[in-house]
Amino acid sequence: MAGRHEAEPEPGAHLLDLPHHDGSALHVAPGPYALGDRVRVRVRVPAAAGVTAVHLRVVHDGEPRVGPMAREEPPAAGQPPSEAWYVGEVEVHNPVTTYRFLLQTADGHAWLTGRGVHLRHVPDAADFRLTVHAPAPSWARHAVVYQVFPDRFARAGRGPAEHAEVPAWAEPAQWSDEPVGSGPSTPRQLYGGDLAGIEERLDHLATLGVDVLYLTPFFPARSNHRYDASSFDHVDPVLGGDHALASLSAAVHARGMRIMGDLTTNHTGDAHEWFRRAQQDPSSPEARFYLAQEAPPGYVSWLGHASLPKLDHRDPELARRLVDGPGSVIARWLAPPFALDGWRIDVANMTGRHRDVDVTHQVARTIRATMQAANPEALLVSEHFHDASADLLGDGWHANMNYDGFSRPVWSWLADPRSTLPAHGLPVPQVRRTGQDMVATMRDFDSALPWAVTSHQWNLLGSHDTPRLRTVVGDPRLVEVAVGLLMTYPGTPMVFAGDEVGATGRNGEHARTTMPWDEPERWDGATFELYRRLITVRRSSPALREGGLRWAVVAEDAVAYLRETPQERVLVLASRAPWRGAVLPRGLLPRHLPAGTAQTLHGPDLLVDEAGLHLPAEGPVLGVWRLTGP
Amino acid sequence: MAGRHEAEPEPGAHLLDLPHHDGSALHVAPGPYALGDRVRVRVRVPAAAGVTAVHLRVVHDGEPRVGPMAREEPPAAGQPPSEAWYVGEVEVHNPVTTYRFLLQTADGHAWLTGRGVHLRHVPDAADFRLTVHAPAPSWARHAVVYQVFPDRFARAGRGPAEHAEVPAWAEPAQWSDEPVGSGPSTPRQLYGGDLAGIEERLDHLATLGVDVLYLTPFFPARSNHRYDASSFDHVDPVLGGDHALASLSAAVHARGMRIMGDLTTNHTGDAHEWFRRAQQDPSSPEARFYLAQEAPPGYVSWLGHASLPKLDHRDPELARRLVDGPGSVIARWLAPPFALDGWRIDVANMTGRHRDVDVTHQVARTIRATMQAANPEALLVSEHFHDASADLLGDGWHANMNYDGFSRPVWSWLADPRSTLPAHGLPVPQVRRTGQDMVATMRDFDSALPWAVTSHQWNLLGSHDTPRLRTVVGDPRLVEVAVGLLMTYPGTPMVFAGDEVGATGRNGEHARTTMPWDEPERWDGATFELYRRLITVRRSSPALREGGLRWAVVAEDAVAYLRETPQERVLVLASRAPWRGAVLPRGLLPRHLPAGTAQTLHGPDLLVDEAGLHLPAEGPVLGVWRLTGP
Repeated sequence: MAGRHEAEPEPGAHLLDLPHHDGSALHVAPGPYALGDRVRVRVRVPAAAGVTAVHLRVVHDGEPRVGPMAREEPPAAGQPPSEAWYVGEVEVHNPVTTYRFLLQTADGHAWLTGRGVHLRHVPDAADFRLTVHAPAPSWARHAVVYQVFPDRFARAGRGPAEHAEVPAWAEPAQWSDEPVGSGPSTPRQLYGGDLAGIEERLDHLATLGVDVLYLTPFFPARSNHRYDASSFDHVDPVLGGDHALASLSAAVHARGMRIMGDLTTNHTGDAHEWFRRAQQDPSSPEARFYLAQEAPPGYVSWLGHASLPKLDHRDPELARRLVDGPGSVIARWLAPPFALDGWRIDVANMTGRHRDVDVTHQVARTIRATMQAANPEALLVSEHFHDASADLLGDGWHANMNYDGFSRPVWSWLADPRSTLPAHGLPVPQVRRTGQDMVATMRDFDSALPWAVTSHQWNLLGSHDTPRLRTVVGDPRLVEVAVGLLMTYPGTPMVFAGDEVGATGRNGEHARTTMPWDEPERWDGATFELYRRLITVRRSSPALREGGLRWAVVAEDAVAYLRETPQERVLVLASRAPWRGAVLPRGLLPRHLPAGTAQTLHGPDLLVDEAGLHLPAEGPVLGVWRLTGP
Repeated sequence: MAGRHEAEPEPGAHLLDLPHHDGSALHVAPGPYALGDRVRVRVRVPAAAGVTAVHLRVVHDGEPRVGPMAREEPPAAGQPPSEAWYVGEVEVHNPVTTYRFLLQTADGHAWLTGRGVHLRHVPDAADFRLTVHAPAPSWARHAVVYQVFPDRFARAGRGPAEHAEVPAWAEPAQWSDEPVGSGPSTPRQLYGGDLAGIEERLDHLATLGVDVLYLTPFFPARSNHRYDASSFDHVDPVLGGDHALASLSAAVHARGMRIMGDLTTNHTGDAHEWFRRAQQDPSSPEARFYLAQEAPPGYVSWLGHASLPKLDHRDPELARRLVDGPGSVIARWLAPPFALDGWRIDVANMTGRHRDVDVTHQVARTIRATMQAANPEALLVSEHFHDASADLLGDGWHANMNYDGFSRPVWSWLADPRSTLPAHGLPVPQVRRTGQDMVATMRDFDSALPWAVTSHQWNLLGSHDTPRLRTVVGDPRLVEVAVGLLMTYPGTPMVFAGDEVGATGRNGEHARTTMPWDEPERWDGATFELYRRLITVRRSSPALREGGLRWAVVAEDAVAYLRETPQERVLVLASRAPWRGAVLPRGLLPRHLPAGTAQTLHGPDLLVDEAGLHLPAEGPVLGVWRLTGP
């Protein structure tokens, strides 16, 4: 079918002759910003763009104003000789202040927004943004997150778990059993992983190089996933109880790592103590925590599942218990002895939304404020599987699990062409898209956010809610390409435990595999080594963690981008198949790039000669090269 | 410069083989909608699209759900034989409920949003929308608005105006004087037009075919434009005072026409009685109507002009006086004897916005509610020169003056290539863009709005704030093309008085020309006849007023679209120059379209044969043809 496809560029074409701006330190004076601040912003303009003047458009109180920008020297040494730099000032006049650039040429003009260069008038949705809202804590920028589904990670065999009775709802499974992907047993299969088991395996995390342990829920429930909490007041005894979490947290912190929890604010389980009281006594305070409806079962529930009654966030007593203030669930688990370093909020997109009620932003602000008071270094990440842009502009979630802006486009580019998987969440088969389509989607989603959010999004290639990466892409060489994107893209990489040893799974439930500690046939050591090496690459490079993002090549089978700080410039190439290659011209490269080969951080050699930088035409390839820097 | 240009389609290509949906009656069961309503939506799928199944994605409470759609018979007789129709139900679960379509094909899938067909994942911003907010009153759908700048339209020479002393600020001008486009005299030139003069000339409006008289401000002020009101309590005596407005309103209504006013809610003049009291007595209630600032002049003003102090819409007493309830300015002028049929709100985009205060939506809702109580048939239109999409989703402005979604793209396509005008509001020259760029911009802006808003936007080709159309496009044949687009595009056409007789002007102020009633050399009778005929065409066709919008051809020098209701199908072709022409295939046209020529409503003949519909390759051409219907 015809339709809006992103155009294939000319063979060998690159994008480095386009003017560029992003929110990183080379281009914007670092925040945080306060109302009234005048922030210097810079745009770089390659000579080949033919730009004769640059103007800055800033929207204040709903009205754009356009003013001139001035030429200035590059803000850092070693910048390409053929790039001019223009500077202007954005007054942070509103809590979210938007701006864009007007590029004047001999024969016309163009707009530069977060979506790129447009030779026509475009809406404001992709304008750059500065906000007065504090970004994620600084440690988040350097983090690599490791997601653990506690029932499936490790069984210590020394804690209370071993002795805990098997709950009535559970169906005990052997550690080597394949998870049941769908059916009545799916939520009941209990493998018996526990928190002490995780604590015993922290060496694995350290060796891998991750430094944030994110646990899916540890509250008591009537399922193996525990998203149907029956209490928020203690740790499930099956996992070892409160003591096991305190012990795990201490062990994690002793290693200089961090630990995050997972809280469902949208709903509770129907076995929750609040819900039981609500059902028993309609005059109880808890009765006002839930939303009544006339149709059976008499209350609103998550997607109609009666076992998951939805909370009514307009109720002040619910706020006090769950999200607001030092006595709330949110605050208590951040305090010793549990000392969580943050929360991932489950179903954040629906939290506080029902019919004509929408208090989601208020709930998010309250949670953030409560966390700020309890632990100013705590991180707040939302689960929003879809377009979260409207929920990420305020003083609420620091960032989101970036399925739409990262996972989906990467999956779509690297999908196994022979795959029979459904496209994620859709009743149609997965399909392989072009590199242009992948990047267009990434830019669409990125450009709706302030850089302070983009650079802290939780990027992921899979979770307990998705098929395993290995199953999505098939070819292990494409796992390398995918993980390379994950570890070099702006944002915080999140690895779902098991991916690093080659776990497979056809859907989220089937993918909740146990860690095969003692099953060499399920333990892919080469994949582990790949993850370990690419995490090391990320850790070795400030630009990969904090640099801007500038697309250099966007072709059907290959994409390349630059990550840059004032001190360092790193080039990333990802190809899924052999392609035509490209040459990035000398004049658009750092001034003192020596001839020969660039410093390889990962992948093949990169030839540099008088013509420029020769991107290899092979594929699949994942190359990471340092062009300038430490 | 390279950059994101919209791609030129293949020569002769058309878009009718793409699946289509819009918010019009063929595709959506008519509103208004209430929470809980289940609304039938239809998508049409040409066989050539190769679609094997269609699914409907609806977002409820922030979460998309995807369900199947069913094939059904076409909803109206005579539909093209090669189109299949799919139907589904959207539950209006939230005040703004969004949806899109998932199109499954043999080898993949695509999304259909308001932006078109996408072969990749796209954000939600362009999803279709149903809202529970009442649309504009039904008369608005059939209206053609005529904007009059009272000082420049007509001088009766029989009312009080003649006898009014020339105000101290004014510089009297002769009726045939050319307006001064910029400088100290610009706001002071007083030509002496008055309301009685307008009343005398209502025959002109009737002959032209317009039926809504929209007056720029009639309040007393210290400028000829009167956007610096010194009172909202009476009509400027220079215009004839209250009696003259009552008389004009009665005469307008006697002809079955309507009359609208223009109110500045963002600011007053510094001669306003409220501001004077505020300055004299800081303890007065009026002192709280304005926003203090430390920097001179001690109060916030519109774009820093001290003569235009900005109002603080948080103040309840200001709300009571200006916008809220039957005693407010908003309500009083809707009541007899003035009986206005609506308001155009000046600087609506900034009203209620300042730094960290943003009560714009609240102000808009209050104004709408006040109007609804005073006159349920009253129309509320905002002035927002830029991207107004965020302000048009609620229960506030019915529609907006559509500069960004209509005027700018049309100007950019038809701009005189030799023009030395600046691009509107920008410090760069006007430039001519392609038809693809024009349509891409129109679709970008349209797709951010519910159809109930799109179909009531005030489209315009110029106003008292812009250069005259004739000056923008140069060639009078392009005036025909532009006016043809205006009269056939979804929304309410607005004509700035004088455009219909060929007025010229290089900027908004220079374009505030007097009507040349007695100056045949300034009165272009052919242009008047063109406007009159095209307004008649619009009035003769329900589809042009209420039909959907389906793009059929989008080429560099020509665009074509269908406007359709269940009963009527009209095709519009606009070309700015000779082009390659196109053939719309027989199978995609109405079932019983006879061979020969279609019914011409305007422009050249349109050949229909066994191959299909032959769009003429000439240009400039404006063709309007009825393919089916009454």
